[in-house]
Amino acid sequence: MFEQLGLIGCGLMGGSFALALKRAGLVKRVVGYSKSPSTTDRARQLGVIDVEAPSALFAVAGADIVLLAVPVAATEPTLKAIRHLVTPQMLVMDVGSTKADVVEAARHALRDRVGSFVPAHPIAGAESAGVGQASADLYRDRQVILTPIERTLTAQLQRAETVWKAIGCRVRKMAPQDHDAAFAAVSHLPHLLAFAAMNAVTGQAQGETFLGLGGPGFRDFTRIAGADPVMWRDILLANREEMMRQSQAFQAALAELEAAMQRGDAAALEALIARASQARGGWHMPTASSSDAP
Amino acid sequence: MFEQLGLIGCGLMGGSFALALKRAGLVKRVVGYSKSPSTTDRARQLGVIDVEAPSALFAVAGADIVLLAVPVAATEPTLKAIRHLVTPQMLVMDVGSTKADVVEAARHALRDRVGSFVPAHPIAGAESAGVGQASADLYRDRQVILTPIERTLTAQLQRAETVWKAIGCRVRKMAPQDHDAAFAAVSHLPHLLAFAAMNAVTGQAQGETFLGLGGPGFRDFTRIAGADPVMWRDILLANREEMMRQSQAFQAALAELEAAMQRGDAAALEALIARASQARGGWHMPTASSSDAP
Repeated sequence: MFEQLGLIGCGLMGGSFALALKRAGLVKRVVGYSKSPSTTDRARQLGVIDVEAPSALFAVAGADIVLLAVPVAATEPTLKAIRHLVTPQMLVMDVGSTKADVVEAARHALRDRVGSFVPAHPIAGAESAGVGQASADLYRDRQVILTPIERTLTAQLQRAETVWKAIGCRVRKMAPQDHDAAFAAVSHLPHLLAFAAMNAVTGQAQGETFLGLGGPGFRDFTRIAGADPVMWRDILLANREEMMRQSQAFQAALAELEAAMQRGDAAALEALIARASQARGGWHMPTASSSDAP
Repeated sequence: MFEQLGLIGCGLMGGSFALALKRAGLVKRVVGYSKSPSTTDRARQLGVIDVEAPSALFAVAGADIVLLAVPVAATEPTLKAIRHLVTPQMLVMDVGSTKADVVEAARHALRDRVGSFVPAHPIAGAESAGVGQASADLYRDRQVILTPIERTLTAQLQRAETVWKAIGCRVRKMAPQDHDAAFAAVSHLPHLLAFAAMNAVTGQAQGETFLGLGGPGFRDFTRIAGADPVMWRDILLANREEMMRQSQAFQAALAELEAAMQRGDAAALEALIARASQARGGWHMPTASSSDAP
């Protein structure tokens, strides 16, 4: 289907996309570039990419599909660097966790060539980042959100859908702002809370002792606190308005629980916990094969 | 080692203890009682208990080891109900997640017989409760905290250590208050935050849509929100003072992150996330075989 994938950012997300395309027989050649030469080198050694490019521009030269897998704040400079090689025949995508800022960056950087860009956010991840964790299975049975704009070329949107489906994703389309509101609630806020919870524990004199007593609940609750600081710095800054709205809603819910605790109101406290417990008990992570989502 | 285990509460925790003792050949007979007759019945059908008792008192009659696996607020009435059968030769334990209140309840309920009671908190759990999930492996490679008091009989404390070790636990001893401070930080606060996060999402008009987009991070972060409302109502009420202290520390850490976000201070935000990420990256769940804990 594609001759050459130009991969900019050869970490977990980018590397897994390359491996998935290769395994599906969708691409003949992967040319990769990473800011860190050691990452690019390792990606080649692992067979994630076939050729190391000395710059983003070199990775894009000759490509008919391009994936940016870089921290979201690097989207605009990266697109600017490759702009004059972007053609209407080329599919350019990202994998960023925020979309309103990425769309804005693409409009600025690509201008009249923005139609080739299909903003994408695959809902996938792993406990540890880095190309060493890249897997052809990372996107299998996951959702991917595409947030096309009015100038997106229909042909490229169609190709984007086809390629994500081919590697096992269910494709959903949303407006960039709706995407950002939803992910503030179910991803960005949980990360913020997990960061705060870890910092609260380690900031105490007995923090080390406390950490030595954490069990499976603590392990799962704090897993996302181990995320990459640069990537998450960018996400939190890019989506700060929706984040603050979600944080307000969270703090109100927390205050309600605390008020019931403090006045010793067992019935109210149980009702609040039951509401959360039932909602969580009835929730199942949507997969590519779920039938309950649109 | 034991003739008869009197099991009061045949759910996940109690049932798993019975199965583990049976598999290790530590007990000849398990007599079980649950508040809900259908639970006791199911426990017998599953082979978790051998005999159904019509009351807590009947479960204790003839037992040389007794385990209370009930919500912590039920500790005092349960101990009162069995008090006159408790002897210095009998080992009585609980599995409650709070210890200062349990010790207080035991003092009141057992009075001069409190020496037989060894307060215990095994750091184990599973996504869903109920005897159907009970497993002889639940406690394998986990930690158990014992919080003896000055009146605890040395012989019973020794037997308690032996039995937990025999089913695969590493035993740690702490003062009840120290236990409660630590678990407020690494268990009770995370539960409170997970409950609040679920309620915040579901309380919004678009909550259902948002939930349909949750990925692996949301799944793991909110897993503990599915916990049992009665059990957690009791824990949060019993340990509310330490909880409020931990919640204050958390809210201060959250405010620090939000302030950096709101003033667009990328460097400060990255540093705060990096602190959390490094702490989580360097953390490994302590197991029975860990060498880093005292």
